Amino acid sequence: MTQETVLGTVDEVLAELRHHIPEHRLLTDPAQLTTYECDGLAAYRVTPALVVLADTAEEVARTVRACARHRVPFVARGSGTGLSGGALPHAEGVLVVTSRLRTLHEVRSRDERAVVDTGVINLQVTRAATPQGYYFAPDPSSQQICSIGGNVAENSGGAHCLKYGFTSNHVLSLDVVTPDGEQVTLGTEAPDAPGYDLVGAFVGSEGTLGVATRATVRLVRLPQEVRTVLAGFASTDQAGAATSAIIAAGIIPAAIEIMDALAIEAAEKAVSCGYPEGAGAVLVVELDGPAQEVEHEYAAVERICREQGTFEFRVATDAAERAEIWKGRKSAFAAVGRISPDYIVQDGVVPRTALPEVLRRMAKISAERGVRVANVFHAGDGNLHPLVLFDADEEGATQRAEEVSGMILDLCIEHGGSITGEHGVGADKAKHMPAMFTAEDLDTMQMVRCAFDPAGIANPGKIYPTPRLCGERPRAVRGEHPLAAGHEGVDLF
Amino acid sequence: MTQETVLGTVDEVLAELRHHIPEHRLLTDPAQLTTYECDGLAAYRVTPALVVLADTAEEVARTVRACARHRVPFVARGSGTGLSGGALPHAEGVLVVTSRLRTLHEVRSRDERAVVDTGVINLQVTRAATPQGYYFAPDPSSQQICSIGGNVAENSGGAHCLKYGFTSNHVLSLDVVTPDGEQVTLGTEAPDAPGYDLVGAFVGSEGTLGVATRATVRLVRLPQEVRTVLAGFASTDQAGAATSAIIAAGIIPAAIEIMDALAIEAAEKAVSCGYPEGAGAVLVVELDGPAQEVEHEYAAVERICREQGTFEFRVATDAAERAEIWKGRKSAFAAVGRISPDYIVQDGVVPRTALPEVLRRMAKISAERGVRVANVFHAGDGNLHPLVLFDADEEGATQRAEEVSGMILDLCIEHGGSITGEHGVGADKAKHMPAMFTAEDLDTMQMVRCAFDPAGIANPGKIYPTPRLCGERPRAVRGEHPLAAGHEGVDLF
Repeated sequence: MTQETVLGTVDEVLAELRHHIPEHRLLTDPAQLTTYECDGLAAYRVTPALVVLADTAEEVARTVRACARHRVPFVARGSGTGLSGGALPHAEGVLVVTSRLRTLHEVRSRDERAVVDTGVINLQVTRAATPQGYYFAPDPSSQQICSIGGNVAENSGGAHCLKYGFTSNHVLSLDVVTPDGEQVTLGTEAPDAPGYDLVGAFVGSEGTLGVATRATVRLVRLPQEVRTVLAGFASTDQAGAATSAIIAAGIIPAAIEIMDALAIEAAEKAVSCGYPEGAGAVLVVELDGPAQEVEHEYAAVERICREQGTFEFRVATDAAERAEIWKGRKSAFAAVGRISPDYIVQDGVVPRTALPEVLRRMAKISAERGVRVANVFHAGDGNLHPLVLFDADEEGATQRAEEVSGMILDLCIEHGGSITGEHGVGADKAKHMPAMFTAEDLDTMQMVRCAFDPAGIANPGKIYPTPRLCGERPRAVRGEHPLAAGHEGVDLF
Repeated sequence: MTQETVLGTVDEVLAELRHHIPEHRLLTDPAQLTTYECDGLAAYRVTPALVVLADTAEEVARTVRACARHRVPFVARGSGTGLSGGALPHAEGVLVVTSRLRTLHEVRSRDERAVVDTGVINLQVTRAATPQGYYFAPDPSSQQICSIGGNVAENSGGAHCLKYGFTSNHVLSLDVVTPDGEQVTLGTEAPDAPGYDLVGAFVGSEGTLGVATRATVRLVRLPQEVRTVLAGFASTDQAGAATSAIIAAGIIPAAIEIMDALAIEAAEKAVSCGYPEGAGAVLVVELDGPAQEVEHEYAAVERICREQGTFEFRVATDAAERAEIWKGRKSAFAAVGRISPDYIVQDGVVPRTALPEVLRRMAKISAERGVRVANVFHAGDGNLHPLVLFDADEEGATQRAEEVSGMILDLCIEHGGSITGEHGVGADKAKHMPAMFTAEDLDTMQMVRCAFDPAGIANPGKIYPTPRLCGERPRAVRGEHPLAAGHEGVDLF
């Protein structure tokens, strides 16, 4: 992790913070620090020099101000469930933990808004809003434990983002501590707010523009009816064709998920979900909305699934039956542990129309390399979650799995997709960014980073493969264009 | 318009551009320049020093590079239909006109995407997509003439934004010329794209972060059925209550519009729209979607309107009948000319729940000041468009109208709303920004502006009341916090 400036030491930060934050929330004991050495992506581990358990936004601001003063890097962490290493600590830095910022300030269902501190758990927002007939739509698999702050940092999605959008579609305004420790509010509750929409830029910035301490989020009305369908198919090709036909019919289900044979096998072993026997793939389609609309869409989905050759078609109409169908899908990642000692959860996106081709190519890579790949994916928006299976004890297996995992990302990019669908870039995928963006595009993003954080102390090493030196302005002002030298044929005045 | 740096002259820019752009597209003749002295907000007029009619993105980049080299301000202009003076020229600057960038590159309905140059007219995108069953959702009143580039600059909305969102919800990626003349791409087509979402920040930045030359936009499927309802009420209170009841019933119509008696009178005089006689207010509700859903919602809307006391309820089921209902609404702004020689179109937002109170207060202000105010508004999202009527020939009338117009904005802010719903801040409302944002919030926005445009040449004087000196960093690094002096009781370390 390259640092661009001479750094101060954490000791100086600690000495300052001791005046303001009680000792038991300033962790320096190596045994305690171990808890924080990784987030949900355990492949990377770094022990931070200091962990601050902040109780208030003011304590977050104090911590960041002390870091700014002494040029010490800081990393924010919510519940630590992220899957791209976005909250991976800095060895000579401070980890600011926001999970104690747990106040749920208000649920204003009349205005379809909730105001929450960013340590509040995703599912708590929904639980608080449900009695008033509302819920918080973004639903990452970790929603029982992940924090709103983490959702904001990673622009988290979930199975229902097909219809309802990602976190960025549900955050209206944010209280943020900027990397120099100032507390500002980004955004307003008004539609088309005046000024720059910095909420959009902040959501998904993975802690590199500051630390969010409070969020005003949109609440969505609970649907009148929900109907969940499980359809067994002989192959992922058939299940994929059914997905395309559903979307082509103008239906946008709340969720469309596909699991392949290997993922089904794992789920059966783990939770006995009772999916159709002998299925090469299962398709889970959830419809929600006004009862009449759901009824109408359900008829179309059933017809389409039968036309595409489903051999078993089930429908859940109450919460218990729905939970039964989702059980297999939701346990899939963890369940893979039953059929493989180790695995990598990949997260890529392809245009929905490229799904069949990408799945075939992935199967070919898997066969050629002798590395098993289980597929679980949000088929509706082309967000793949291939699980690359391996046994770390086997000579060279880890490396082979990592190669296959990387080849899958290349495949996504080749087909006009993206290196991450909902897990973020974090520490894990910074190296893949140049495959998606030109140097100029990345430089433009880093101009914004430099504006917020000229000292480069906010979560350094994440997102960008090459940190930009913020003093530089390699831009075309007064003939100083960086392309002016060393590039033939460049069109300058 | 304060400039922060010593500026070069337009002559130097012109001399450079003559090598690359034909003379007939470099306008300096005062008679020709007059055409460009204002946009849709004719209250402000400034003659630019030079107008460049760019044919390509490269010509836009050349122009901006020349401006950057000589530190000459530039302002981008699309069709010039904006209502906040966002495209008001700079007297010593260059006006870059993008309306000749008219290539509609592709309509990919399979992926629900279109790729267009930013000079393309809003309605052309819909016309190109309609044969494939799609359309472009943002629908400002000026959609027959306004450009996609202008929509991007102002984050334009329209009557149907209640259900479908603003321009920012429909732009996936932008080719942009940054204020130093570099051509970069912001965003990708993938959901939850990695890196910062700079598309969100750019949309609505009113030309202060650069000039967009190409956009990849989302297409929306044409609804299976559209049904438009016109309901006459005795008062705006009743029409407002019906609006609240419709939303409370969980229905999100494509549009909910209200016109008051004065606006109806104007529309009748102008286009004989045949609205219910003696109505204190009309409510227009448009429902769209799958036929069953529309049928179901229609029944609920009819019931609610009758419960709230509608005395005349009509429904249009085909395009001709729909056009008849919309005719009055769409002509309302222009029609006001029939009942008043002059008028100001205001654009404010209040939370939907505050509508009745704000309307009552507005009526009171109107009565007290003796200034007539006609109301036409997007009731569903609380976006008011009061038309403040006056006669400029009458002593003091203009000033009184401007005072009332300003008081209406204050009323919006007081009720937790916003100074602009869809027209932007531009040159007109920069002075109101401090009523909505703290100095620190505005400073954070301007940090981004400085990152893109340290020389302050991109549309200076717009959005922000006080330009930030980009060399400064009045921030809390190493004890240099701006609050350290002169503010008692500030909590510093």
